[in-house]
Amino acid sequence: VGPEALLSWKSKRTFTSFGVFFLQMGWGDLGVFGEPSKETPNLDQMASEGMLFLDFYTANPLCSPSRAALLTGRLPVRNGFYTTNAHARNAYTPQDIVGGIPDSELLLPELLKKAGYTNKIVGKWHLGHRPQFHPMKHGFDEWFGSPNCHFGPFDNRALPNIPVYRDWEMIGRYYEDFKIDLKTGEANLTQIYLQEALDFISKQQASQQPFFLYWAIDATHAPVYASKHFLGTSQRGLYGDAVREIDDSIGKILKHLQKLGISENTFVFFTSDNGAALISAPKQGGSNGRFLCGKQTTFEGGMREPAIAWWPGHIPAGGVSHQLGNVMDLFTTSLSLAGLQPPSDRQIDGIDLLPAILQGKLIDRPIFYYRGNEMMAVRVGLYKAHYWTWSNSWEEYSKGIDFCPGQNVSGVTTHTQEEHTNLPLLFHLGRDPGEKYPLSFASDEYQRTMEQISVVVQQHKVTMVPGEPQLNVCDKAVMNWSPPGCEKLGKCLKQPKSDPKKCFWPH
Amino acid sequence: VGPEALLSWKSKRTFTSFGVFFLQMGWGDLGVFGEPSKETPNLDQMASEGMLFLDFYTANPLCSPSRAALLTGRLPVRNGFYTTNAHARNAYTPQDIVGGIPDSELLLPELLKKAGYTNKIVGKWHLGHRPQFHPMKHGFDEWFGSPNCHFGPFDNRALPNIPVYRDWEMIGRYYEDFKIDLKTGEANLTQIYLQEALDFISKQQASQQPFFLYWAIDATHAPVYASKHFLGTSQRGLYGDAVREIDDSIGKILKHLQKLGISENTFVFFTSDNGAALISAPKQGGSNGRFLCGKQTTFEGGMREPAIAWWPGHIPAGGVSHQLGNVMDLFTTSLSLAGLQPPSDRQIDGIDLLPAILQGKLIDRPIFYYRGNEMMAVRVGLYKAHYWTWSNSWEEYSKGIDFCPGQNVSGVTTHTQEEHTNLPLLFHLGRDPGEKYPLSFASDEYQRTMEQISVVVQQHKVTMVPGEPQLNVCDKAVMNWSPPGCEKLGKCLKQPKSDPKKCFWPH
Repeated sequence: VGPEALLSWKSKRTFTSFGVFFLQMGWGDLGVFGEPSKETPNLDQMASEGMLFLDFYTANPLCSPSRAALLTGRLPVRNGFYTTNAHARNAYTPQDIVGGIPDSELLLPELLKKAGYTNKIVGKWHLGHRPQFHPMKHGFDEWFGSPNCHFGPFDNRALPNIPVYRDWEMIGRYYEDFKIDLKTGEANLTQIYLQEALDFISKQQASQQPFFLYWAIDATHAPVYASKHFLGTSQRGLYGDAVREIDDSIGKILKHLQKLGISENTFVFFTSDNGAALISAPKQGGSNGRFLCGKQTTFEGGMREPAIAWWPGHIPAGGVSHQLGNVMDLFTTSLSLAGLQPPSDRQIDGIDLLPAILQGKLIDRPIFYYRGNEMMAVRVGLYKAHYWTWSNSWEEYSKGIDFCPGQNVSGVTTHTQEEHTNLPLLFHLGRDPGEKYPLSFASDEYQRTMEQISVVVQQHKVTMVPGEPQLNVCDKAVMNWSPPGCEKLGKCLKQPKSDPKKCFWPH
Repeated sequence: VGPEALLSWKSKRTFTSFGVFFLQMGWGDLGVFGEPSKETPNLDQMASEGMLFLDFYTANPLCSPSRAALLTGRLPVRNGFYTTNAHARNAYTPQDIVGGIPDSELLLPELLKKAGYTNKIVGKWHLGHRPQFHPMKHGFDEWFGSPNCHFGPFDNRALPNIPVYRDWEMIGRYYEDFKIDLKTGEANLTQIYLQEALDFISKQQASQQPFFLYWAIDATHAPVYASKHFLGTSQRGLYGDAVREIDDSIGKILKHLQKLGISENTFVFFTSDNGAALISAPKQGGSNGRFLCGKQTTFEGGMREPAIAWWPGHIPAGGVSHQLGNVMDLFTTSLSLAGLQPPSDRQIDGIDLLPAILQGKLIDRPIFYYRGNEMMAVRVGLYKAHYWTWSNSWEEYSKGIDFCPGQNVSGVTTHTQEEHTNLPLLFHLGRDPGEKYPLSFASDEYQRTMEQISVVVQQHKVTMVPGEPQLNVCDKAVMNWSPPGCEKLGKCLKQPKSDPKKCFWPH
């Protein structure tokens, strides 16, 4: 497809809606990426009708920071979704987190709103659960879902069960009003989230308003669940059942867009917030295919994500792109599609992917792999340089916490934080996508490549202005004891005395 | 597709030709199976026009026995392609091997010949290079290729270079007359083998004769090569260049069938003789995706193979099958397509896959994983039980020979031969295709499953009549010193004195 595709779309554009499916699924969980059970016919079809991204990354190997990065277009180290409590630690937003998304950050829905978009989040917000962080204070017009992961059930004394919100107020709690049976794995949640998406799309279509639907549901995060209809239907066990239900739901949403005749006005993107959590495998964990390790790590298994762009009539069917992409690009790309400019008063890390998607261009840009406050690695072209390596600590590993089960690459999957800044470990991801064979330090290829990469890294580091870290302080008093709306439901709980502490982040 | 497809084909059948592409490519080497560079557009298209087999196996994790199994429809332990020199050792046909395919074995081309087929082998024969084992003494009408792997160059004193045959006689030797530049990786061989295939098909089409084309070329076996046009074109390095050239060649062969109007009369199958040789990675080795280990082992990475069936107008496009398949099935399936019965005077291990291919049936059958004279493992349904585990010896491993680089599953990828016959290690390949999490011996699932598997194994063992082992004796005198035709070329070499010895098989 030539530049005329982009031009013709720009000239005849009225408006383009967006759907973003943002889930926790590993690269190797999709049939189209080689999952041997091949149980994702709808995602596979989405890929065959759209464009598959093979070199697409998340901004962080953990959920909250990735979600903050997608919605701000900025690295977590800039938007505050990281910790300085210890070096290179993953942090997120459990119930006792005091911080959340700062008001100073401009979120995608805030910007789209100015262009007349209606924005809805279905699923896990994860950018802070205290009142000032509410998604509807940050540009969303509607919300159905929860602020935190669906861990539980809790006893409502030491820990409250996680609330589920409709818009401004809670309407119940997980395990109490929204059942999850941990024994059988049955829960109807994905069906509820599906219906929310379908209804929202119908409403927007009826009112002819452009929309941004952010479908960021909890599944397949552990504890894994699926609804009755899907239980026991996968070769892969409960995790596979959950994947099949999500796949089915995405198929239904796409078909709904087509049925309503708005698929050519709706840009849809599917990707994931981090690699599959191998720690939960085999029963509750997915697959990162042949990539090294998983969630929590800055190896490819932790951060390379399945990614599909779908926009019938615009994106050529069956396309494949090697563009280095990042979830932060969805921010800039969506703005571009809406005819908006990204904010110019701050560093935006996301790039506009439209030239890659519509014209097949390859835009030169690096990928940075952060763990907390540390740039662990960088990818430039096909090369990836590790400046730091760490899987997890010996202490955690000896407890059975293993982010790389069955994998052990000497000097690479280290259980102490190893610094390589003077002589980074360099991999060629084309010949060695599994990060098993570091290039010889003495080789010409190493010397030549590191010269290029060093410039990119230096440029990145000297211009880096880290944001105020939001994930440092934890306090039991801020938990979801009495979310707005709890009174009407008689679900307010007694809040313990405030006792702020440094959060402990072991990974 | 219903049973009528099979019936209608049977009623209107005049003849069906066969093409079998039998290469050394790993599961993870094809884009359609998730190779992240996605550089196999022709094989991917073959899959989208035909049927993908996701649970397809070779009969042995090494080349010669697999090839013997394909052509005889029988396990190597039956057809003689194994050794009893030591326990559970892989053996093949190097230049000094005394044995080869016994006359008592009935090969697919021998049987097809009786039904009027013309049979050609292009590439590596590998079933013995002494005169009595010549492929044209075993049913082939034409041969272009070599009897052994393209190792070399040799000095023609300690070792002769491998001859290349046209039909009965040699026409040159590798490295001498058929150049392979080990420094640049350049060799024109795949192009020559491609032309042989195209010419044969044209000739057969012109004479309206059914044919069996066995395209069993050397690439991507190490030393890896590609022709100039393909060198440097892959993200994956030289190995990827070789894969791209093979992919291109297969695309050309399929298009040739279509152009000649005989694609609907030609059943084509693509598969591999063993898993990718991880020992040659990253520069000369491929990928087995997320499967454990590679060539030489009885883990999934050693024996689960990419497999595609293609037969336009008969096989529904884009089909996917979970039928447990094996290269030995190509023997029985081809006979079935030719309207022939398999021999009834011997045990045939291959089954007729047509009901799976044309009617979507799933036929219950086990897969046996042999290493030499030992049944190491068995798959029944989604379960795989390891009766023996071994990657390779500590001695070999300490020399840097690693069949499972970067992988280490405690108690599974063992460096001593571990017997588990009393309490086999059991894996669920749906939930755990990477063989990382053996089921608990105490679980109901283990007990229930092993009861079923034990019956299958007992039945297999009590009825097993091993063939006379062909791969026990080696002798320098039998090397390719003076193959037929050498006189005309002035390429006869002096044969050393006969000194037969037990072959040494370290793996």
